[in-house]
Amino acid sequence: MSDTYKPEWAPEKDSDKFASRVMFGVKGGHDGMPDSSGENSQTKRAAVIKRKRLTVDDYVEGVLNGDRMILSRAITLVESNAPVHFEVAQQVIQKLLPYTGKSTRVGITGVPGAGKSTFIEALGTKLCEAGQKVAVLAVDPSSTVTKGSILGDKTRMENLSRQDNAFIRPSPSGGTLGGLTRKSRETLLLCEAAGYDTILVETVGVGQSETTVRSMVDFFLLVVLTGAGDELQGMKKGVMELADAIVVNKADGDNRPKAMVTRAEYERILHFLRPATENWKTNAYTCSAYTGDGIMELWDGVVSKFMEQGLENGVISERRKQQTLSWVYSMVEEHLHNLFYRSPSIIEYMPRVEDEVVEGKLSATRAVQELIKKFSATSLKAGIDNDITPFDIK
Amino acid sequence: MSDTYKPEWAPEKDSDKFASRVMFGVKGGHDGMPDSSGENSQTKRAAVIKRKRLTVDDYVEGVLNGDRMILSRAITLVESNAPVHFEVAQQVIQKLLPYTGKSTRVGITGVPGAGKSTFIEALGTKLCEAGQKVAVLAVDPSSTVTKGSILGDKTRMENLSRQDNAFIRPSPSGGTLGGLTRKSRETLLLCEAAGYDTILVETVGVGQSETTVRSMVDFFLLVVLTGAGDELQGMKKGVMELADAIVVNKADGDNRPKAMVTRAEYERILHFLRPATENWKTNAYTCSAYTGDGIMELWDGVVSKFMEQGLENGVISERRKQQTLSWVYSMVEEHLHNLFYRSPSIIEYMPRVEDEVVEGKLSATRAVQELIKKFSATSLKAGIDNDITPFDIK
Repeated sequence: MSDTYKPEWAPEKDSDKFASRVMFGVKGGHDGMPDSSGENSQTKRAAVIKRKRLTVDDYVEGVLNGDRMILSRAITLVESNAPVHFEVAQQVIQKLLPYTGKSTRVGITGVPGAGKSTFIEALGTKLCEAGQKVAVLAVDPSSTVTKGSILGDKTRMENLSRQDNAFIRPSPSGGTLGGLTRKSRETLLLCEAAGYDTILVETVGVGQSETTVRSMVDFFLLVVLTGAGDELQGMKKGVMELADAIVVNKADGDNRPKAMVTRAEYERILHFLRPATENWKTNAYTCSAYTGDGIMELWDGVVSKFMEQGLENGVISERRKQQTLSWVYSMVEEHLHNLFYRSPSIIEYMPRVEDEVVEGKLSATRAVQELIKKFSATSLKAGIDNDITPFDIK
Repeated sequence: MSDTYKPEWAPEKDSDKFASRVMFGVKGGHDGMPDSSGENSQTKRAAVIKRKRLTVDDYVEGVLNGDRMILSRAITLVESNAPVHFEVAQQVIQKLLPYTGKSTRVGITGVPGAGKSTFIEALGTKLCEAGQKVAVLAVDPSSTVTKGSILGDKTRMENLSRQDNAFIRPSPSGGTLGGLTRKSRETLLLCEAAGYDTILVETVGVGQSETTVRSMVDFFLLVVLTGAGDELQGMKKGVMELADAIVVNKADGDNRPKAMVTRAEYERILHFLRPATENWKTNAYTCSAYTGDGIMELWDGVVSKFMEQGLENGVISERRKQQTLSWVYSMVEEHLHNLFYRSPSIIEYMPRVEDEVVEGKLSATRAVQELIKKFSATSLKAGIDNDITPFDIK
């Protein structure tokens, strides 16, 4: 297709003599990452095919060398729903595992409009200028529906994206929350192996996203706006309990006094909540992503302090250990579910059982006994022989 | 043990001359139902052994004849954690299934102190006086920990318990929420088969209890006190969304005006919520369990109207259908979980996998793949051959 087009306001005829032709907006994200439109993901796939096929070792070496293009392709591999990609991706992850775990993992949430992205851009840029390598990821379950709502737009985080030490990756779209979690966690591991010092994981308050992100980061930051009262209405209950710090953004100009008041309000509420991390007092702060005030103070005075202390008293290693294990447990649950409902005998048998239960011919408990028996006797064994993968991939 | 004892305030010596000896409080509930203290459940078991052993048909016949003693024993059977009892119980349920589904199932919740029990006693008594047979059940997950906090005490609901048409059963204690749910649902079915017209299921706002009860009743009632604001703090978020009606209790004497205000407050909030039942507008009402004002008005004007309308437009049959099916699905999930974690190969293999994952030798995803493979190949098949029941019974 042509890379310019005639806008609707241009006159119909004599269009050649008429000068105005307009460039298409930028499609596709940074670093060869896909944007979320189906059309574009097709062009992406086409591009991938053209590129040299990489071996597991190519991926491992490239990631370890911090090659951003290969890192991006490794992530695309992890995000792929094709069984063949899945298998390669797992080999890559397995080989990179020893090189992971060295970064500072920070989760950032807040209601839409709280200014998460501008905050992340300001923070990330300052960290890069301080010589750090910063990766920005996103977890956005809504993207599975709305096809990518955060970080999906290249025009955001322009300054940060210009930094050589910054790597920005939008939320993978499609798939279940379980699949999304796996993809995000493994993307985080890839970035760590690629030598990124700080990984910022942005999320929106949709569904389970805060809990999901809390379960993969060391430090969880809640970005809020002035007017705690009103906002607390919209804020999902329990989110404050997850936070290791709350920062009132947009504390600049006329808004500054209001921000101080809001900060105090949050402090008051925090007083009644159990801190998210043992031996750590969650406090509220103010900052301005616009002027940059308070951003590095928050980083040096709070996040860095949290990491130092947590690494020293073992809280962080224990947290990461528990995070990984509970991730294993939740994947097990998901797999058992998939194995059951995808097994031929259940697919065949379930409708009849449902009818009998609904018609009151079969008690629910008996129904479950019989379903489990059927499943155990036949499906599962068969399922494994046919190597049906229980992961959320087609 | 003696049925009297010397209170601590009685003088040490000359205790024989000293008159004061005090009777023990009543142990054990109505209708030979167990109270929740471990000691008592032993005496109960002893009693059961003495009694004539009943066959499946004895149970079925007895329940259908509305024999309260046999109904109680059938419920005890359903609540038993012994596999042999479980099997008999299931045969009884299966045979009684055709006689269930005819009652009005009402769930009643509210924060502790809202006066649920007094409300239920007042309502139940009036319904009995109106010629109805009323069963009162309780679902209280906390009882698994605190050993029965609601309906556990015989001294409550004294008036109602004196009614011949009333049957009161405390929450079964012990076991998981899943087990508790099964026991409660099957108890409800037994009561229906025994011809109870109305089944009132009381629950406290602990854990998932509201959702659990909502998922087994037609109509869900939230009992609240005056001062919506303060109470809403303590109220679990989302409970109002489950309610088909909200009733402000203790609307008597000086408290009446305040109750009217509170009612209005709730109406205002309800205005913003999606009703729990389609084609039904959830409203707030006032009543007094003490004076009886508003109780039958609520029953005739709201609950009965709800049932008529719901039975006519099919909402209730559809709700019951969905309730039973989702119960089947949740039991399936629980079973798969139990089958997995109780399978010998996983019990043996899991610790090693956990270590390797924690030490970073094995990726979480790989770990899950291997666990599922191991499980599928060996445990499940074996588990079934050895007839390990995946239900929450020992």
